[in-house]
Amino acid sequence: MSVDFNTVAKEFCNFYYQQFDSDRSQLGNLYRDQSMLTFETSQLQGAKSIVEKLVELPFQKVAHRISTLDAQPGSPSGDILVMVTGELLIDDEQNPQRYSQVFHLIPDGNSYYVFNDIFRLNYS
Amino acid sequence: MSVDFNTVAKEFCNFYYQQFDSDRSQLGNLYRDQSMLTFETSQLQGAKSIVEKLVELPFQKVAHRISTLDAQPGSPSGDILVMVTGELLIDDEQNPQRYSQVFHLIPDGNSYYVFNDIFRLNYS
Repeated sequence: MSVDFNTVAKEFCNFYYQQFDSDRSQLGNLYRDQSMLTFETSQLQGAKSIVEKLVELPFQKVAHRISTLDAQPGSPSGDILVMVTGELLIDDEQNPQRYSQVFHLIPDGNSYYVFNDIFRLNYS
Repeated sequence: MSVDFNTVAKEFCNFYYQQFDSDRSQLGNLYRDQSMLTFETSQLQGAKSIVEKLVELPFQKVAHRISTLDAQPGSPSGDILVMVTGELLIDDEQNPQRYSQVFHLIPDGNSYYVFNDIFRLNYS
């Protein structure tokens, strides 16, 4: 009966970061017009604006490594909340930067799209 | 017309951490029976279980300091998603621990309750 939200959350994040790290211009399918992205202090709405923002980030090579991934059902209607903490390795830097990210996933047919996306580097 | 979700999110988090740091046994009013807490690797459901978990955490003195707080509307029905990164100072430790936390707030009359709560220390 119930969706295995942990499996969905893990598969989503693995796919998302793999796509981000290989070609982030292709992430638009995961967002819709109502989707929101907070990336550090920038706030964007809609798949087109969100992908433009991600593409223009000032790095060529990027690799995400997930440290923790925790999911919960967001409501009885099947949406899922995921919080990731991880490490980001940019271009030829030696030291990864730690980050925190939240995804709010909404079911859409057999798939999910991102309604909320909040990303922050963890400054120390 | 629209709720100022940023103001609500900030006021909620300030109140929540102030209450947590002064007397966390009183946090039960902010949760409901359906509420979920992921605290590190522990998963709890319901106000009673959640408060029991928070109360039994092995420290006497605790202080939260917010580093970043980002909010987004969680849906058209007025719920709010908040991601906090911050520092936690426990008992007489000199060095704060960094943490990340997500709250999913649901409107309830003139107030809000916590539906989802995910907390993770950021290990380095």
